[in-house]
Amino acid sequence: MISVEDARAYILKHFAPLEAERVDLVDALGRVLAEDVVSPINVPPHNNSAMDGYAVRADDIRGASAQNPVRLLVVADLAAGYVPNAEVTQGTAIRIMTGAVLPPGADTVVRFEETSEAVNQKATGKGSSAVEILGAPARGANVRLAGEDIRKDQVILEKGTTLRPSEIGLLASIGAGHVAVHRRPRVAILATGDELVAIDEPLTEGKIRNSNEYANAAAVLKAGGVSIRLGIARDNVEDLTRKIRAGIRAGADLFITSAGVSVGDYDIVKDVLNAEGEMHFWQVNMKPGKPLAFGIVGGVPLLGLPGNPVSAIVSFETFARPAILTMLGKTKFARPYVQAILQERAENNAGRRNFIRVHVSRNGNGEYTATTTGEQGSGILSSITRANGLLEMPPDVLEYKRGERVKITMLDYPEE
Amino acid sequence: MISVEDARAYILKHFAPLEAERVDLVDALGRVLAEDVVSPINVPPHNNSAMDGYAVRADDIRGASAQNPVRLLVVADLAAGYVPNAEVTQGTAIRIMTGAVLPPGADTVVRFEETSEAVNQKATGKGSSAVEILGAPARGANVRLAGEDIRKDQVILEKGTTLRPSEIGLLASIGAGHVAVHRRPRVAILATGDELVAIDEPLTEGKIRNSNEYANAAAVLKAGGVSIRLGIARDNVEDLTRKIRAGIRAGADLFITSAGVSVGDYDIVKDVLNAEGEMHFWQVNMKPGKPLAFGIVGGVPLLGLPGNPVSAIVSFETFARPAILTMLGKTKFARPYVQAILQERAENNAGRRNFIRVHVSRNGNGEYTATTTGEQGSGILSSITRANGLLEMPPDVLEYKRGERVKITMLDYPEE
Repeated sequence: MISVEDARAYILKHFAPLEAERVDLVDALGRVLAEDVVSPINVPPHNNSAMDGYAVRADDIRGASAQNPVRLLVVADLAAGYVPNAEVTQGTAIRIMTGAVLPPGADTVVRFEETSEAVNQKATGKGSSAVEILGAPARGANVRLAGEDIRKDQVILEKGTTLRPSEIGLLASIGAGHVAVHRRPRVAILATGDELVAIDEPLTEGKIRNSNEYANAAAVLKAGGVSIRLGIARDNVEDLTRKIRAGIRAGADLFITSAGVSVGDYDIVKDVLNAEGEMHFWQVNMKPGKPLAFGIVGGVPLLGLPGNPVSAIVSFETFARPAILTMLGKTKFARPYVQAILQERAENNAGRRNFIRVHVSRNGNGEYTATTTGEQGSGILSSITRANGLLEMPPDVLEYKRGERVKITMLDYPEE
Repeated sequence: MISVEDARAYILKHFAPLEAERVDLVDALGRVLAEDVVSPINVPPHNNSAMDGYAVRADDIRGASAQNPVRLLVVADLAAGYVPNAEVTQGTAIRIMTGAVLPPGADTVVRFEETSEAVNQKATGKGSSAVEILGAPARGANVRLAGEDIRKDQVILEKGTTLRPSEIGLLASIGAGHVAVHRRPRVAILATGDELVAIDEPLTEGKIRNSNEYANAAAVLKAGGVSIRLGIARDNVEDLTRKIRAGIRAGADLFITSAGVSVGDYDIVKDVLNAEGEMHFWQVNMKPGKPLAFGIVGGVPLLGLPGNPVSAIVSFETFARPAILTMLGKTKFARPYVQAILQERAENNAGRRNFIRVHVSRNGNGEYTATTTGEQGSGILSSITRANGLLEMPPDVLEYKRGERVKITMLDYPEE
């Protein structure tokens, strides 16, 4: 039976970043750049003031202090966003606001705090014809140079960058209102089985609700994909064939089915998948999640997840999520992990890679602790809702002892 | 000047979870339940088989082994989803698939692997009139009991639970096609300043692009809010007043402005905010981000962020994000933190809480290391795009030494 690592590597060979699309900047949040972004401008575009104060010539204020103030004539008052209409010549200053373009002639900004404006409040403030300079900052002080943040023609963000709010802001600052990102993958989701009823249908005897469709659709959305929900296919060749073909026609980049792929199952799902495409394997050496089909159907990679809800979630996490992230252009998609102190013994006697649901929290010493979330049966969906991490036990590890430090893959980050 | 902790506590007193709305289950991903959810059914609804095998009476197979098989008459073949139309009486068995309802009379399931079906392949498989039982599992083996996952009338998820894909699946399994969650907050976003040009306008001399609107809109979206983008208000009373009133009328739950709230700024933004509402404070003892206004305008809490892009992002993170999460119903919203080895000296001589942008990664020993991302000027947006964490230095901490272990608040989890 193929190992988890080999199965994942094999499956991921069938996926690559999808083609680029240009989207509005805000819609690019969380997406991955499909091209380098080069700045057409300097940011800031001009030398400008980093402070509210007075633009001066450093030569004029040499030696200025509270005891020995230098009096300058104020020739203009300059707000951010306006172009200087005056020049700073010997013995003069221009009152300037943060962000305003440094006027010609000036090389230094003296903050209000080092002028008579601060000392006398507004006595010599806006509109005054003169100001006393009470300090002598170095030449160039409080001046932001053009291109200090970004230089014209510089690559500011490389292809492959995931866009967070700060990258969105950076792109806005250079006027990139639309950006090229890899498009979102379309994921077809089909539940199979005569035992399933839809969420809004009466639950008659012997039936269970189709929950995998919802868990899978939410997991696709969370990973950044778009789901194509195909509902339930009944265990007959006609219905299965029709719904699989519908998903292919709808432009799926990945096809996810659930149930019908176990060894003991009636062979209808398996027969239809084999008839419609070419299946490569049907089992992976893991627990839960041993039944796991992979192949190419109608040109589209298809993952046949197990029917048990917990198995389906663990298999999605292990195989479908990395495939979706790969199509989005992401290259690093390992979940974060922590080292945690196991609060009870864990055992693995299946000879498979065992994924144990755990809840991780921090103890009083700031160390992480991990507690299993009870009954680990693959039908017990409630146990995974109590979990925020997975403890993986390799096939050849039979036991972790209570108190042992173990690596936990975090599905969510532990709440602090 | 008010401390960061006091400002945050004061601001958050003005927010509470918003009213509930009923949404389609898949749209509830990431939202918070506004009511306890009680299951109307047992899950599974009936005792059923946990394996593919034969439903038998434990009394009939006592002592069965490969050497001493017990031969049973197969009276029916039962797929998942179908109701048993036969009974298991003494000396008989029903072939049963995983998930099928346990037939009357049966109390135990023997897996295929422990029957002649596995040994002889399908020689005695589906359709056979008899099977040999080669093992004697305990009474009740491989039977899932009704209500084993969820009991009828049990609270399966409590009010306040954030819905992940596994909770969505759990809710689907009990037929909860719509759920009550706290509605998403609407956040009005208004940039102010004569120096700003819109992203698609020509960048004339002295102007800079309105980037804060985009960073803020993306941050609102990422936190789970809905943004109301009001564009740019010019530094005049009429335009500011009109746009602030438009945001209030549009039903904002939180109003975010940027720029115009520094001590040295022209007083137009301050005058209009004071005229339209009641402002509570204008500064917080932090760096970057000292200019930070908070008050109530038109009945809506208003955060006046600084104009510097980095200051705006740090202030959003510190004050706006917790407010949005509170409105969504979340109660634990601290970012994850790590202990990291600081790769260079960090100093804090402002007497304020200093937020230093750092990049955290893991070294070869699995330890986290933190490196500052260069120039920390509050105008240098590119430095925050290289950061995945913030190092906070309290006002009274003047220095962290190179090699010191420091706590880093993670904006993103470090890639492994």
